[in-house]
Amino acid sequence: MAKEKIVLAYSGGLDTSVILTWLKENYDCEVIAVCCDAGQGEDYAAVEKKAYATGASKAYILDIKEEFITEFIWPTLKAGAIYENDYLLGTSMARPLMAQKLVDIAEAEGAYIIAHGCTGKGNDQVRFETTIKALNPAIKIIAPWRTWDLTSREDCIEYAKAHNIPIAQTTEKIYSRDENIWHISHEGGNLESPWNEHKDDIHVLSLPIEKAPDQATYVEIDFEEGIPVAVNGEKMDAITLLTTLNKLGSANGVGTIDIIENRLVGMKSRGVYETPGGTILYKAHGALEKLILDRDTMQYKNIVAQKYSQLVYDGLWFTPLREAIAAFVDVTQELVTGTVRMKLYKGNAVSVASKSPNSLYSEEFATFSKDEVYNQSDAEGFINLFSLPLKIRAIQKQSKQGGAQENEALERKILKGGDFIR
Amino acid sequence: MAKEKIVLAYSGGLDTSVILTWLKENYDCEVIAVCCDAGQGEDYAAVEKKAYATGASKAYILDIKEEFITEFIWPTLKAGAIYENDYLLGTSMARPLMAQKLVDIAEAEGAYIIAHGCTGKGNDQVRFETTIKALNPAIKIIAPWRTWDLTSREDCIEYAKAHNIPIAQTTEKIYSRDENIWHISHEGGNLESPWNEHKDDIHVLSLPIEKAPDQATYVEIDFEEGIPVAVNGEKMDAITLLTTLNKLGSANGVGTIDIIENRLVGMKSRGVYETPGGTILYKAHGALEKLILDRDTMQYKNIVAQKYSQLVYDGLWFTPLREAIAAFVDVTQELVTGTVRMKLYKGNAVSVASKSPNSLYSEEFATFSKDEVYNQSDAEGFINLFSLPLKIRAIQKQSKQGGAQENEALERKILKGGDFIR
Amino acid sequence: MAKEKIVLAYSGGLDTSVILTWLKENYDCEVIAVCCDAGQGEDYAAVEKKAYATGASKAYILDIKEEFITEFIWPTLKAGAIYENDYLLGTSMARPLMAQKLVDIAEAEGAYIIAHGCTGKGNDQVRFETTIKALNPAIKIIAPWRTWDLTSREDCIEYAKAHNIPIAQTTEKIYSRDENIWHISHEGGNLESPWNEHKDDIHVLSLPIEKAPDQATYVEIDFEEGIPVAVNGEKMDAITLLTTLNKLGSANGVGTIDIIENRLVGMKSRGVYETPGGTILYKAHGALEKLILDRDTMQYKNIVAQKYSQLVYDGLWFTPLREAIAAFVDVTQELVTGTVRMKLYKGNAVSVASKSPNSLYSEEFATFSKDEVYNQSDAEGFINLFSLPLKIRAIQKQSKQGGAQENEALERKILKGGDFIR
Amino acid sequence: MAKEKIVLAYSGGLDTSVILTWLKENYDCEVIAVCCDAGQGEDYAAVEKKAYATGASKAYILDIKEEFITEFIWPTLKAGAIYENDYLLGTSMARPLMAQKLVDIAEAEGAYIIAHGCTGKGNDQVRFETTIKALNPAIKIIAPWRTWDLTSREDCIEYAKAHNIPIAQTTEKIYSRDENIWHISHEGGNLESPWNEHKDDIHVLSLPIEKAPDQATYVEIDFEEGIPVAVNGEKMDAITLLTTLNKLGSANGVGTIDIIENRLVGMKSRGVYETPGGTILYKAHGALEKLILDRDTMQYKNIVAQKYSQLVYDGLWFTPLREAIAAFVDVTQELVTGTVRMKLYKGNAVSVASKSPNSLYSEEFATFSKDEVYNQSDAEGFINLFSLPLKIRAIQKQSKQGGAQENEALERKILKGGDFIR
Repeated sequence: MAKEKIVLAYSGGLDTSVILTWLKENYDCEVIAVCCDAGQGEDYAAVEKKAYATGASKAYILDIKEEFITEFIWPTLKAGAIYENDYLLGTSMARPLMAQKLVDIAEAEGAYIIAHGCTGKGNDQVRFETTIKALNPAIKIIAPWRTWDLTSREDCIEYAKAHNIPIAQTTEKIYSRDENIWHISHEGGNLESPWNEHKDDIHVLSLPIEKAPDQATYVEIDFEEGIPVAVNGEKMDAITLLTTLNKLGSANGVGTIDIIENRLVGMKSRGVYETPGGTILYKAHGALEKLILDRDTMQYKNIVAQKYSQLVYDGLWFTPLREAIAAFVDVTQELVTGTVRMKLYKGNAVSVASKSPNSLYSEEFATFSKDEVYNQSDAEGFINLFSLPLKIRAIQKQSKQGGAQENEALERKILKGGDFIR
Repeated sequence: MAKEKIVLAYSGGLDTSVILTWLKENYDCEVIAVCCDAGQGEDYAAVEKKAYATGASKAYILDIKEEFITEFIWPTLKAGAIYENDYLLGTSMARPLMAQKLVDIAEAEGAYIIAHGCTGKGNDQVRFETTIKALNPAIKIIAPWRTWDLTSREDCIEYAKAHNIPIAQTTEKIYSRDENIWHISHEGGNLESPWNEHKDDIHVLSLPIEKAPDQATYVEIDFEEGIPVAVNGEKMDAITLLTTLNKLGSANGVGTIDIIENRLVGMKSRGVYETPGGTILYKAHGALEKLILDRDTMQYKNIVAQKYSQLVYDGLWFTPLREAIAAFVDVTQELVTGTVRMKLYKGNAVSVASKSPNSLYSEEFATFSKDEVYNQSDAEGFINLFSLPLKIRAIQKQSKQGGAQENEALERKILKGGDFIR
Repeated sequence: MAKEKIVLAYSGGLDTSVILTWLKENYDCEVIAVCCDAGQGEDYAAVEKKAYATGASKAYILDIKEEFITEFIWPTLKAGAIYENDYLLGTSMARPLMAQKLVDIAEAEGAYIIAHGCTGKGNDQVRFETTIKALNPAIKIIAPWRTWDLTSREDCIEYAKAHNIPIAQTTEKIYSRDENIWHISHEGGNLESPWNEHKDDIHVLSLPIEKAPDQATYVEIDFEEGIPVAVNGEKMDAITLLTTLNKLGSANGVGTIDIIENRLVGMKSRGVYETPGGTILYKAHGALEKLILDRDTMQYKNIVAQKYSQLVYDGLWFTPLREAIAAFVDVTQELVTGTVRMKLYKGNAVSVASKSPNSLYSEEFATFSKDEVYNQSDAEGFINLFSLPLKIRAIQKQSKQGGAQENEALERKILKGGDFIR
Repeated sequence: MAKEKIVLAYSGGLDTSVILTWLKENYDCEVIAVCCDAGQGEDYAAVEKKAYATGASKAYILDIKEEFITEFIWPTLKAGAIYENDYLLGTSMARPLMAQKLVDIAEAEGAYIIAHGCTGKGNDQVRFETTIKALNPAIKIIAPWRTWDLTSREDCIEYAKAHNIPIAQTTEKIYSRDENIWHISHEGGNLESPWNEHKDDIHVLSLPIEKAPDQATYVEIDFEEGIPVAVNGEKMDAITLLTTLNKLGSANGVGTIDIIENRLVGMKSRGVYETPGGTILYKAHGALEKLILDRDTMQYKNIVAQKYSQLVYDGLWFTPLREAIAAFVDVTQELVTGTVRMKLYKGNAVSVASKSPNSLYSEEFATFSKDEVYNQSDAEGFINLFSLPLKIRAIQKQSKQGGAQENEALERKILKGGDFIR
């Protein structure tokens, strides 16, 4: 009889290498290692080799970069979703896609168990497992960090040595990191005290702002229906476009944030995130929307964006609500076509100019001189009705406070003013 | 018989000087000029003198700076209210207070007419008039720009010359500006085309980012219940505190934005705003909240802040809804006490460290190693219930899609996985 | 040279007959009368005849019932939009469609002026004009009630007599009414004092609740993707279905509300609305959603529904925001297919049973006995993480309040409790 | 050495009697039984006696009715909070108060363990435990239903018999019920299939609608700042007032709902709730608000009410967010003083008239005839600005679609229409 198969989310790092071995030791199973290339820049051939060396019966290396950008990042960018006003959701968006791939492979391989290396205190376990349950409720999940006896990185290293698992890293690991083509996150180390300033050596993707050049860089980005399609007038596929902006952002120190955030699992954590190209894109997209969206739509979309960001952060990508909001967003983006000129300079990424065939900005209407299209006397009628509830309230209040005499006086005053003015 | 009295919102500038004269010419009235010092840094003695010289029967110069900060700016800061994600509401917050002062003086003087110099295309006319109607519905309003024949700055200058009104400014006026202790706004000029980058010469309050020093400045701000009370450990009154931060912000190029915004009266306009100290305060306050507010409160407050910003922008300060939201905000701020360390550098204002006696950040809970206070196995139960609706949905979907046979297979698979894992 | 053409929203009633004549008298124009049959049950042949008799150069009678239901009512029903918790938007939904037809005819006829008979105090003028401006900004609008000298019904009658306009109604008109296939509204008369109970004689569409039969009526309604498609198992087109439910609702006194509402133009008004079939449909649809929508989607949709109701009430149908929300709603409705059994009895319309192939209700999960699918011990983990922010807050609070000694005691207590229980 | 003390939420029913015994059997402890009288109408002397007879070392009977109404029900009523559009939160509001009492007694008794009889599938476990953790994080919780081997009512009966626990009920228990002075809930039995209509015999508090009298009952309720204070003009304390309305509601079949609801723990359940007096109060309060609250406040409060209802349903009473929203609500209620006349008839509870010294309804403003206070020509200006974004959008769209020629034509048309009309 064939052994049970366990599909493992595998990175080639210490943790998942140990898990691979531990699974085989503790279950009578074969392990299928799946490594998703979301742009974290590994040597994937080496990862594959290592998977087999560590005992995997099969190893998959999946390039998910294109899909990650077009199916997960672009929709979130269009929504303008930012978690707790700062975080651009780099890890949150990647997890559901990875989990989806794990489910696909499990189904293709006839496996019904998936294992992952997330700890029991973080958001990623929720994102992985929620996605798996939403896509295939029959699949079981093994999360060794929640159940085994190893409680630290040191325990893992010891376990690895005892089991002859090749471990590349010998240097001390300071930060817990997650990287993909959109961002890198850093946690742990001296970040764990909120009163510590993070050190410059934390930077991986972008320069510290002081080290950026003394000359500003300008870049123009074209959007079509809310999606970036060209840089400096040159049309690009999604990967090239994001990579190009990452380079520009990195060189100018753009996109590093250092925040305390509320995890889904109930505690606060502190993290530093570098999102160079993404930060440029969010700012450019927002500036373009200001030119195109009407006030009602813009303001309501801002509200909806917050919900969207929560759903994405919480791993609720494959849910009816996320999909319904995405449909809302898509309608708002139909006219979001145009160009934004961005200035990048020592951590600043600011839109300095924008244009669109669908712009609602009209010089004719906006200038302060009298004109053909706008009748200034309309404003009086507008204000009178706009403020009517307040006026009625004030009248009722005054007539309640005053007695009959005061009311008469008020009335005389009202009429007198009116007569005088007309 | 005494003449009618008109209370005029008077700045000493060209427009309101012309209006003063025009009112006397067109109504059989005396004009009481009221100039509010909100920190725009005029020579108020000269303004007073000019008012009388231009024909005012009485001139008031009111210092409203303290009240402006403590009664209008602090509540808005505590709310975290930002209009359309960028604008810190500098003009919007000032107008209701000025209008309130106009009403106070009108009532004290026995006048029932107020005149102002706002044009018929902007937000300020609405903010003034809405406040007046809310506070005293019997008062009549005269807004000459909406009714007279003058249609441009040139017309005004000509009128002034023809009526011997002293006009100080001879140089060409490029931008339409509004300044107070919180900010300065710029409109008009070459800003009117959104595809023009604004020029460096627009800056009044703060340095262009490239001109700021090459060395970062650090500053620590203490908050008590959401209100800033000290800078670098030194307790300060509101005016000193804001002035101190304005200087630091200005020197480091902090707080300039350049946006397209949706006016209340239905069209888009483009403006540049400089809010140096205010920008530092908003960022510091937001960082402190991240340390202290729980997730639910923070996320809901973000939603509420948007409504608050709309109300303030729209001149709806003296309304039941604004007051009710302010009460909500106050409760959320009860524990927002602590210190934020800010780094200011060439336009960047970032919080680098924060501490609070009420911090909900707990190193014990947040670290990724096993600990006494957090039981990682709780996470499994949490995830199971958190994702239960998705799981049920997936099961219903699968059993609907599959026939009886497939269901049996699914069931076997579910059980088998379970058996194997336990 | 041909005369100018004015397209008039014409009902055949007193007001629009007078307007037709007045337009011809005051403008050198021909008038094209357009009457939309939205189900108000007029003798449309007579209306057409009367239009010509009153001087129209052309008369259109348009049957818009089907379009009204499928393109305006169904989307609003799917959204669950109810204005200020009570009003089912019967008039609000009809106006944009009528205005759209007026624009269509104006364009087809080469006319660029539209006239309507709405007064200057109501919502309908806004709904008509907003739609016209959104669809064709070149069209001019004439609203005689806002400009002419007639100020009352009596003035109109006099005008009609003086101009030989045939007026059918001789009886006193008590209420101002608007009727279509969805509802009838009543305003004015003794309703104008909120302390008056409305009288039974106000009822047009449905029985007063006391006059309904003593026996309950049951009806089953089938929905497909949120749209009602069958009554008691019988598939019906939209008009037949709504008419059928109107009859059942009317007979059982269902769907009359009597409310104070906030008009868009700033004042409150009081109205009685009868919406017999619509009330049944809203309740049935809501009950079906409870069976099918997950908690997140249902709760967020409720929020969105409020915005939708405001937009519809305010005449903002043809706007990007209304369309974007409709797209959101459509996604939520994809699975809203099933059957609801309603009990109608003396004003009550309550869902007593429901079923759906997409139901998320699962007897297995819901029952209170232990079962295979739900592991009750998961609840502990869930609660622990769900309440973690509150627990951390309480710990921080206690340790802040207590000194070192108390903390130790607390810690001992925590440990002791833990030891004891495990 | 003294034994550990466990504080048990005790009702005197089968479950908590078994738990009392089970705790003593499984822990080396004494059990303090606490029974809260929230109006469920037990013989509390008998409950106390039974507690001792079953082995409690101490028994508390606490009358929490007054506090329940004034501190929990009134704030929720003022908020207008309704869970998922139907449920008036009867059980949800009671749990936090009961849990608070348990904590108080635990602290007074020097106990640090609380036990309750909630199952692992319901909301009440979460409400109890969340409150306990928020009030005293050092307290441990025992929830036997989540851990012991008994899995059904039958198991409990057997256990009771085996341990000589006196069990009063011999008749079959059909529904799982929770009662207090505000409501009674019913779950289980034939309700578990959503396609079953509930039977008349389920009613405990109120008559089935068909059995209510053929004559309507009228009742007037006075509110002060949102709180009901008098019935038919007679001032009453909270308990008397609610009891009085309960009787009136019950007699007229008011307040029964039958719904599918989304539990916090992830599954749907079906319940029937009877809330006779509460339903009258909610409807009366809502009607009074319609007379008093301005449009902005009313509409925003409706949004906020949904959040409030979720928080209460989820057991998050003692949280910063719930408290902040309550502060918001209190400000909105400052003027909600007045009288509502309700008609009760066979399940219907409708407001037929209302009055208030703070009414914003103004007959003068609302009537459709021309008047002194409202200038109908204001409406044109209002509409012009209100619809300006749509008009600009339409103009941009047309000029984009059309070429130069069409634009000229459009312009001519615009001007021509304008010229003709003016």
